[in-house]
Amino acid sequence: MDIVERLVAELGPEHVSVAPNRLDERRHDTWFQSQLDDRGEHPAPKPRCVVCPSSTEQVQAALLVCRELRVPIVPFGLGSGVCGGVLASADTVVFDMSAMSQVREVSVTDLTATFEAGVRGTDAEARLNASGLTLGHYPQSIDRSSVGGWIATRAAGQFSTAYGNIEDMVLDIEAVLATGDIVRTRRTPRASAGPDLRHLLLGSEGILGIVTAATLSVRRQAEARLGAAYHLSTLRAGIELQRKIVQGGFLPPVMRLYDSTEASRMFSEWAEDGHALLVLVHEGADALVQAEYAQVHRLVVEAGARLADPACVDHWLAERNHVPDFAPFIENGVVVDTIEVAATWSRIGPIYDAAIDALRAVPGILAASAHSSHAYRSGLNLYFTFVAQPPERDRMSETYRECWDRVLRATAEGGGGIAHHHGIGRVRRSWLSQEVGEGGLRVLRALKRALDPDGIMNPGALLPE
Amino acid sequence: MDIVERLVAELGPEHVSVAPNRLDERRHDTWFQSQLDDRGEHPAPKPRCVVCPSSTEQVQAALLVCRELRVPIVPFGLGSGVCGGVLASADTVVFDMSAMSQVREVSVTDLTATFEAGVRGTDAEARLNASGLTLGHYPQSIDRSSVGGWIATRAAGQFSTAYGNIEDMVLDIEAVLATGDIVRTRRTPRASAGPDLRHLLLGSEGILGIVTAATLSVRRQAEARLGAAYHLSTLRAGIELQRKIVQGGFLPPVMRLYDSTEASRMFSEWAEDGHALLVLVHEGADALVQAEYAQVHRLVVEAGARLADPACVDHWLAERNHVPDFAPFIENGVVVDTIEVAATWSRIGPIYDAAIDALRAVPGILAASAHSSHAYRSGLNLYFTFVAQPPERDRMSETYRECWDRVLRATAEGGGGIAHHHGIGRVRRSWLSQEVGEGGLRVLRALKRALDPDGIMNPGALLPE
Repeated sequence: MDIVERLVAELGPEHVSVAPNRLDERRHDTWFQSQLDDRGEHPAPKPRCVVCPSSTEQVQAALLVCRELRVPIVPFGLGSGVCGGVLASADTVVFDMSAMSQVREVSVTDLTATFEAGVRGTDAEARLNASGLTLGHYPQSIDRSSVGGWIATRAAGQFSTAYGNIEDMVLDIEAVLATGDIVRTRRTPRASAGPDLRHLLLGSEGILGIVTAATLSVRRQAEARLGAAYHLSTLRAGIELQRKIVQGGFLPPVMRLYDSTEASRMFSEWAEDGHALLVLVHEGADALVQAEYAQVHRLVVEAGARLADPACVDHWLAERNHVPDFAPFIENGVVVDTIEVAATWSRIGPIYDAAIDALRAVPGILAASAHSSHAYRSGLNLYFTFVAQPPERDRMSETYRECWDRVLRATAEGGGGIAHHHGIGRVRRSWLSQEVGEGGLRVLRALKRALDPDGIMNPGALLPE
Repeated sequence: MDIVERLVAELGPEHVSVAPNRLDERRHDTWFQSQLDDRGEHPAPKPRCVVCPSSTEQVQAALLVCRELRVPIVPFGLGSGVCGGVLASADTVVFDMSAMSQVREVSVTDLTATFEAGVRGTDAEARLNASGLTLGHYPQSIDRSSVGGWIATRAAGQFSTAYGNIEDMVLDIEAVLATGDIVRTRRTPRASAGPDLRHLLLGSEGILGIVTAATLSVRRQAEARLGAAYHLSTLRAGIELQRKIVQGGFLPPVMRLYDSTEASRMFSEWAEDGHALLVLVHEGADALVQAEYAQVHRLVVEAGARLADPACVDHWLAERNHVPDFAPFIENGVVVDTIEVAATWSRIGPIYDAAIDALRAVPGILAASAHSSHAYRSGLNLYFTFVAQPPERDRMSETYRECWDRVLRATAEGGGGIAHHHGIGRVRRSWLSQEVGEGGLRVLRALKRALDPDGIMNPGALLPE
C-alpha cells in the first residue's frame, strides 16, 4: 500500500483527502513569496495528500505511518502564517489540524481553558466570553489563526504589554512528537522540574512534533477600559515616553506608537503632519485603571505630548483585525510586507533609523515606515512596513528579499532580535544564526536530530539548510 | 598526566584545589539527607578536585579536559540547594563558580544587569540598589545563593506574585554546554525564533551545561510600599481570598498565607488561636499602591477576614531570610524539611488536606503544616513543613523519605505539580515521571543524550536512574 492507502486504512477515508482543491488550499501559508510564486512560473506543488485528524490518537496514528514510510509531514493550523513556515512539497502529507476544534474544558474557578489545537481564535474567545472570561490574547489574525498555531509560532497579541504573549498563558501542552510519543506536560501554575518542555514546542514551527491541545490561563473580562491617543513630535520622543510609562510600573495593555508616515496612513483624519501618534488602552479593575490613566497622562504631558482626538482609539479598535490582501499589490508589480523585530530601549531607536534608511535606498521603494505594538520593561518591538515597485516585474522576488535582508541586517547589526512574533519560517531562516549564534544553532540542530531522528517534521522550516 | 595535572596545566594552579578542607566543603549542597549522611557511617566522599574558573573561557577549557578524560563534572554555585542537586562522588571534578563574580554591565536605561554566574544575590542587589534599581527577585536564600544557581534551579523569590520568577527576568544566558560549545542567547525583550534556548538551561540543574552569565531584566526601586496582615478562620478561606485578589487583577508582590499551626509558630505574639494568617505587601507607583490596597482591603472584609497587628508584616520582613540550621535537629534524632508544590486553585485545597493527613500518620511525626508564598492567576503553591522523631535513631533516613513521599504522592494524586521552585535534585528524582509523564521523561533523556553525549554533566541529578 502507498502512503495514502495506509493513511486511509488507519484513519478512515473521511480523514484523508486527495481532492485537488483541498490539496491546492493546503500548499502554503499566506507568505508573500508563496503568493507571488503562485502567480508566476513556479507555484508550490500540491502535497501528496491532506489528513485531517479529529483526535490526538489519530494524529499519532497518522504520524507513525508517515514515520514508518519516511514521508515528510507539514503541520497546518489555519494557514495564517506570514513567514513561509508552511510550504508543502509534492511528497509531503499535510496534517490539517482544523478538525481538532473541541473546547475540552473551561474552569471559571481556575481561569483555565483547554483547547484543541485547531480551535480558531475567535471561537475560543466567544466560548470564553459566554462565561465572562477572555483570552487576553488578540493577535491581528485572531479570526484566521488557531491555538496550536499560536503555540507553534510563539504568537503575540495586541494587548501583550499587560497580558503577556502566548508563552505567558500556556499552562500545559499536549503534543505528538516525531517519535510518536504523546507528551502531556503537567497542569500546574509553575514548576521547577527540569527544563520546561512547553518551551520545546513553543516556537518550534512543527519541526519537532505537532501540538494537539493546550490549556491556557485566561482572565475575567476587564471591569473597565479607558483609551487615549497623543501626538508626539518624533518617533524617538514616543519611544522615550513609552519607556518611562512601562518602567514607571504602568502597563496599559495596548501601547502602539506610529511613526509620522504610518500615523498619516492609519489615522488620516486625525494625525498631525510630521508627528508620531501614540494609542493607549488601559484595562482592568476600575480603581486601577483610573489611577493608571491619571499617572500615565501626567507622564505624557511631561513629555510634551498633546492629546489627539479619542476617535483614534475607536478607529484602531474597530480596524485592528483587518489583514490586508496582497493580491492587488502583486497584480500591480508591487512587493509589500511587514517585518517585526525587537530590541532593548537603548538600541531600538538607532535600529529604526538604520532600517528605514536602508529601506529607502532600495530601488523602487514607495514607502518605508514602522510602528511599535509590544512594550517590555527592557525594550520594545518595531513593526516595519515596506512597499516597493521594482523597475522590472521579474525582479519582484529579488526586491522583496532585499527589503527583508536590509531590515534584518540593520536589526542584527544594531544588537536587536530579528524576530519578535511571526516566527522564522523560511523568510528569516538564513538569519537564525544571528539570533542564536553558531553555538545556539548547533543546539537547535541537536534537538532536531534527537527528537526527529528521521527528519520528517516540517523539513525546510525554521532551520537553515 | 592525570585529571588534576591536566586542569592545573590548563587553568593554572590557583584555579585548581585538592586541599582537603576545600574538597570537604564542596561535597554537597544543604540537602537534609546529605547532612544526615555526614553524621553517620556513609558521609559523601570528597571529590577528585575543585576547579574555580574565573572566566567563561576557563570554564570551557576545564570542561573540555573533563570531557576528553570522561571525568564527571558537578557544578557548584554557592551550595544553598536543598534537594541534593549537588552531590559529588570520589571521581568528580567540582566546578566552583564563586570566582565568576563580576557584574559585567548595568543599564539604567534598559533596566538590565549582566551578572556572572557566581554573583551572590545580596551582592547583585547591593550593586543595583546603588543605582536606584532592584532585582525584584528575593529568594529566602538571597545571601547564600547565586545568579547561576537561580537559573539552574528555576528559583522563585518572595515577591513573585507581582515580579515573577527567575524565568520572567532572564533576558539572555551565556553557558558552556557539555560539548564545549559556548552558547549566548540574544539580548532581546522577546523573540519568536525557534524553541527558547534559555529554557533548556533554566531548571537544568547542571545536567546539560554550566551557566556562566546572564542578563536580568531589573526594576526601579518601588516608590511606595504598604503592608497588612489579616486573620482568617481557615486556610481554605484564605486560599479562596487569595484567588479573588489575584483573579480580580490585583498583584501584591507578597501574599503569604499561613495555616493555624504555622501562624502560631511564626507569629506567636499576634496569631489568633486556630486561625490562619495572611500577610500582604503592596509595592509600586504610589497611586497604584493606594488604589490596590483599598480594593484588596474591600475583598478582605467581604471574605470576613479581620485586620491583624501590622507588626506581623514588619516581623516577616525582618525575618524573611532566616534559614534554619538542621544540625541541632539531627543531633536530637529529629528529621525536618520543607516541600514546595503547586496546583490550580480547585486542586490546591484538597492537596493541603491530603498531604497534612498523610504526614500526620507518619510514626513519630511532631508537626505537619504549610503556608503559601506564590500566587498565580491559575493557582497557588504550598510550602509544607514536617518535623518527625522516629522511634529509633537508625530510621531517620527512612522516616525522612516517607514524609517526602507522602507529600509528593498526595500532590501528584491530587493533580498538582510536585516541585514549585527548589528543583528535583535527588530528593524528587523518582517522582519526575509523575510531573512530565513517561513521554516527557523520554524527551528529557533524549535532550540529555543529545547535548551531553558522554553523560559527564552532574550525573545522578534530576533524571531518575
